[in-house]
Amino acid sequence: MKKLLLASTSTVHGKPYLTYLFDALKIHFKGIDEILFIPYARPGGATHDEYTAVARKAFSQIGIKVKGIHEFDDPIKAIKEAKGFFTGGGNSFVLLNDLYKINALPALKKAILKGIPYFGTSAGSNVAGLSIKNTNDMPIVYPPSFDALGMIPFNINPHYLDPDPTSKHMGETRETRINEYQFFNKIPVIGIREGSWLEVKGNEIVLRGELTAKWFVTGEETIELKTNTKVS
Amino acid sequence: MKKLLLASTSTVHGKPYLTYLFDALKIHFKGIDEILFIPYARPGGATHDEYTAVARKAFSQIGIKVKGIHEFDDPIKAIKEAKGFFTGGGNSFVLLNDLYKINALPALKKAILKGIPYFGTSAGSNVAGLSIKNTNDMPIVYPPSFDALGMIPFNINPHYLDPDPTSKHMGETRETRINEYQFFNKIPVIGIREGSWLEVKGNEIVLRGELTAKWFVTGEETIELKTNTKVS
Repeated sequence: MKKLLLASTSTVHGKPYLTYLFDALKIHFKGIDEILFIPYARPGGATHDEYTAVARKAFSQIGIKVKGIHEFDDPIKAIKEAKGFFTGGGNSFVLLNDLYKINALPALKKAILKGIPYFGTSAGSNVAGLSIKNTNDMPIVYPPSFDALGMIPFNINPHYLDPDPTSKHMGETRETRINEYQFFNKIPVIGIREGSWLEVKGNEIVLRGELTAKWFVTGEETIELKTNTKVS
Repeated sequence: MKKLLLASTSTVHGKPYLTYLFDALKIHFKGIDEILFIPYARPGGATHDEYTAVARKAFSQIGIKVKGIHEFDDPIKAIKEAKGFFTGGGNSFVLLNDLYKINALPALKKAILKGIPYFGTSAGSNVAGLSIKNTNDMPIVYPPSFDALGMIPFNINPHYLDPDPTSKHMGETRETRINEYQFFNKIPVIGIREGSWLEVKGNEIVLRGELTAKWFVTGEETIELKTNTKVS
């Protein structure tokens, strides 16, 4: 049974990296002593080693070892043998491009469908959706496709932000951008605010965390989803 | 001689569409009574007719007629015969994708290099750069390439926004995003604030408008460019 924890952000304001998710992660990775970290999204241009060290330090606090996928000679074999996955945030284009470079998507999909727990934050959650077409990231590299893992039947907009009614900035709001997407695509999009996440167990998807989420469907009113309710 | 006016935004807070640029546009399109409008960026999902009507209304105030490229049976012939161009803002991916669909880039480049004046706002300015890799837009369609017109030897980040020191949002700032771009690319990027624009005459590029602009070069300190100075 598929098991994913897809968080809007790794870090909420005022708390150290991942700590707000520790309780959920202990349950998500119960009985697992080592996970495979995918550092390809390279936040701030961090090297794979630097980024893996950050993830390793955080997971050491809940007794889980972390191996970086780049530490293996055969990354596909590493995916096949992994007991759990964590894909960190950063740039979704860079992440997806690197996943395509080593043809990681089929192996990752297969492992997740087999029940290997997957955890993603920000870009790492974004790539669990059907495509990265609702990322906020800058398209700094050109991936061979925007199609992603498709582990949920919709797309994720992480770090969802409500329009600021006092803003004098004329750039598009997040809501406008997602509505524009739906002129061209019939795929639902969930805007997840920082501090909330999706818990996926098989075909059941539940919103967790303290905040509501925005649910966008082509041609319908946008819905404010309550926490601890099913997403569909 | 190349002649381009590349604005960060079509609209500044509190003023009607394009009006802050009217004085500059009268000079830019001096002696020209009709321009070709490219509405492909479809802001808010606007139809080509709707969007062209908006541009037409604005330009009527400075005595210039507007034809939409979609009104022609042969859009490439329309580009070849145009006396001036205006590419409106919206979504850079949608815009570039549609330009590729009709193979408009070579004809547009040729016309601009011949001296036909080009005016762009936001996405319309973005596509005048080397690529759209520094757009803020959501990648709602997958274009066959991110390569754009390349009428200037760098990329544009329109609607440039300074980091907000009071923000509790953990998403990347504009500066972080552009710095990440420069880990992977050696191309300079200019962040143009709303209300400023680039005036391109041949190889001379000057920043115009009231505000300074941010100039990002790989491995160098970011520079705050003064208005009315050359960009290079």
